[in-house]
Amino acid sequence: MNGDWSSVRSPSVRYPNQRFRVRPRLVAVIAMVMFFILILLLMPESKSRTGGSFDMRNRLIFAPSTMYNDSYPGSIPVKTIGGKKYKIGLVADLDTDSKDKENPKIWNSYLKTGYLTLNGHHDGLTIEWEDNRLLTSQFSQGGRGMELSELIIFNGKTYTVDDRTGVVYEIIDNRVVTWVILPDGDGTASKGFKAEWMAVKDQHLYIGGLGKEWTTTTGELVNLNPQWVKVISHLGEVKHIQWSKNYNAMRKSAGYEYPGYMIHESGVWSEHHQQWFFLPRRASTLRYDEVEDEHRATNILLRCSADFEQVTVTRIGTLNAIRGYSSFKFIPGTRDQIIVALKTEENHGEIATFITAFNIKGVIIYKDEKIADNKFEGIEFI
Amino acid sequence: MNGDWSSVRSPSVRYPNQRFRVRPRLVAVIAMVMFFILILLLMPESKSRTGGSFDMRNRLIFAPSTMYNDSYPGSIPVKTIGGKKYKIGLVADLDTDSKDKENPKIWNSYLKTGYLTLNGHHDGLTIEWEDNRLLTSQFSQGGRGMELSELIIFNGKTYTVDDRTGVVYEIIDNRVVTWVILPDGDGTASKGFKAEWMAVKDQHLYIGGLGKEWTTTTGELVNLNPQWVKVISHLGEVKHIQWSKNYNAMRKSAGYEYPGYMIHESGVWSEHHQQWFFLPRRASTLRYDEVEDEHRATNILLRCSADFEQVTVTRIGTLNAIRGYSSFKFIPGTRDQIIVALKTEENHGEIATFITAFNIKGVIIYKDEKIADNKFEGIEFI
Repeated sequence: MNGDWSSVRSPSVRYPNQRFRVRPRLVAVIAMVMFFILILLLMPESKSRTGGSFDMRNRLIFAPSTMYNDSYPGSIPVKTIGGKKYKIGLVADLDTDSKDKENPKIWNSYLKTGYLTLNGHHDGLTIEWEDNRLLTSQFSQGGRGMELSELIIFNGKTYTVDDRTGVVYEIIDNRVVTWVILPDGDGTASKGFKAEWMAVKDQHLYIGGLGKEWTTTTGELVNLNPQWVKVISHLGEVKHIQWSKNYNAMRKSAGYEYPGYMIHESGVWSEHHQQWFFLPRRASTLRYDEVEDEHRATNILLRCSADFEQVTVTRIGTLNAIRGYSSFKFIPGTRDQIIVALKTEENHGEIATFITAFNIKGVIIYKDEKIADNKFEGIEFI
Repeated sequence: MNGDWSSVRSPSVRYPNQRFRVRPRLVAVIAMVMFFILILLLMPESKSRTGGSFDMRNRLIFAPSTMYNDSYPGSIPVKTIGGKKYKIGLVADLDTDSKDKENPKIWNSYLKTGYLTLNGHHDGLTIEWEDNRLLTSQFSQGGRGMELSELIIFNGKTYTVDDRTGVVYEIIDNRVVTWVILPDGDGTASKGFKAEWMAVKDQHLYIGGLGKEWTTTTGELVNLNPQWVKVISHLGEVKHIQWSKNYNAMRKSAGYEYPGYMIHESGVWSEHHQQWFFLPRRASTLRYDEVEDEHRATNILLRCSADFEQVTVTRIGTLNAIRGYSSFKFIPGTRDQIIVALKTEENHGEIATFITAFNIKGVIIYKDEKIADNKFEGIEFI
């Protein structure tokens, strides 16, 4: 046994003759040549048909700006007597009221800022509001624009998305700057993507829509465009991915299979849990109906494995059928245990936004508090 | 001498003792380890902070669509008795007339198609027109849209650009689909980029503006935004590059230095010549003036080295001071010797487009022929 061991561990000393002795210099030269070949082969873009020299030069010139920036949250939190204090931002979707009353070429939204302080035991928080900044844009599609539906820090920048034009804007101070433009569906539609949620996963920005088949106001199937998800690199490459399987897995797990439905306005990837979290805005076992939909809000949290093969459902507090989730984020520093969320109401023309917080077991730690008479559909730690 | 040679060529056989003999197995193991490290280091995106596993998977899944397609022209030419027949397309910039007369949410342009047949001696051609297809979009900025200023085949697709919104559209059949959106200047402006020319170089789409400082109507400097160029990968990454040096080199070579000016609406990179070709629309040794500008057209062709260190000037035919170039392309199969170009006039409210062809020595082979009573600012072999 001992002899066998040694033969396995040190075979090199046992070569019977010189023929099998590889020359060290030769091996070194081969290793070096292999090195160079590998470097050439693996140079960025070198797989494309013509030379990759431009890209290489480009990458060197642009090196600082092409690096992904994973800093989060947007501002450094401050330790206070009450706990850890984070800056938060919310963006408004004013729907048709986005259009400026005086200048017909301008569309408006608001960036509402404030501070959220989470106590040391992570079981209570306070929120104070700062101001409402006006955000304006001259871009529109079909006479509508700046209907902002989400807010997110990605690549160290603050982005928001307009669910009419499909434009993703960067927010710089009090201005919005166009970054990418998303066509609906598989990317060949003439219409802008009706974006509703944004999440960061593996250095990419995921932007999704309602997740429900597009139907008429009375529930007849039109297309699957709202089930496409846009995956955007920090350099602005856009890929269009069919998510019907994922959306349908969530719907099935909670018992709302077609012709029932589920509508999403928020979704977050948790790096910590390696799971997708969704708080559907509305769901029903009955088919879609525009009027009935107003009081079909949900109070469920869906946790999904990366491949959506496993989905678990957790109830959050008690259901208020007219108040559905529009956006949420994990509070930083809680190991993705505590969520702050926005809820909105549209009840016979009455509109309102509420803020709430709870842990992922469904225990409320901050009860619904009304914060506005219009809809805020995005919240982020800016 | 002979002895010295052998000591240089085969030092490995001369090691004085065993201590310097590198073990072959060890070298092989080191080489393999280096291999793996290199593969990991050089994996796409792996320089960024978190893992690159998604990107790798992504590249595999999306491999077919992420390959650059260098096919050109857009359609296969047909051999006829008269010569080689190419399909051509032109796009219109109707300025404020783009806005639909009936539907205030729609902006219009036209794709004019036809066939250009170049004879076997490359000294004569015929052009026949097919139809004018209406292209519509609901995107606008500041109440304007679809003011298309160039047409180009890139990555096997047909792209055009709106000089109001800064949106680059792909043309699919009779529809336009948004691809990227370009902000003005260095990329942080709220306004859309006033795009005027598009060229393909090293698998990238270059989009440029007028190339002249932005001034008031009477020539006071406002900013350098029109001297930025956008460089776009076939995957949609946008980079913003300052081209003042290049534009100023062209202006200087032809004798139009500041406060004189030169305005560009067309530019082409020649892979064959490894040179940039520009046909400035207008130029003057005097400072800019909106009214005077209408009759300051040029008849010069600029040929520039890749770094713009060398610029040569060639006169094309005789000057018509109210008719400046708006777009041109090399006729395929002529080794970039023959150019087909569009010229436009804006003379006291009278608008017209002409087509012409000439060789790069400045000899006209197709005299200005009027083809429309509005402005066509892009021509391509589609």
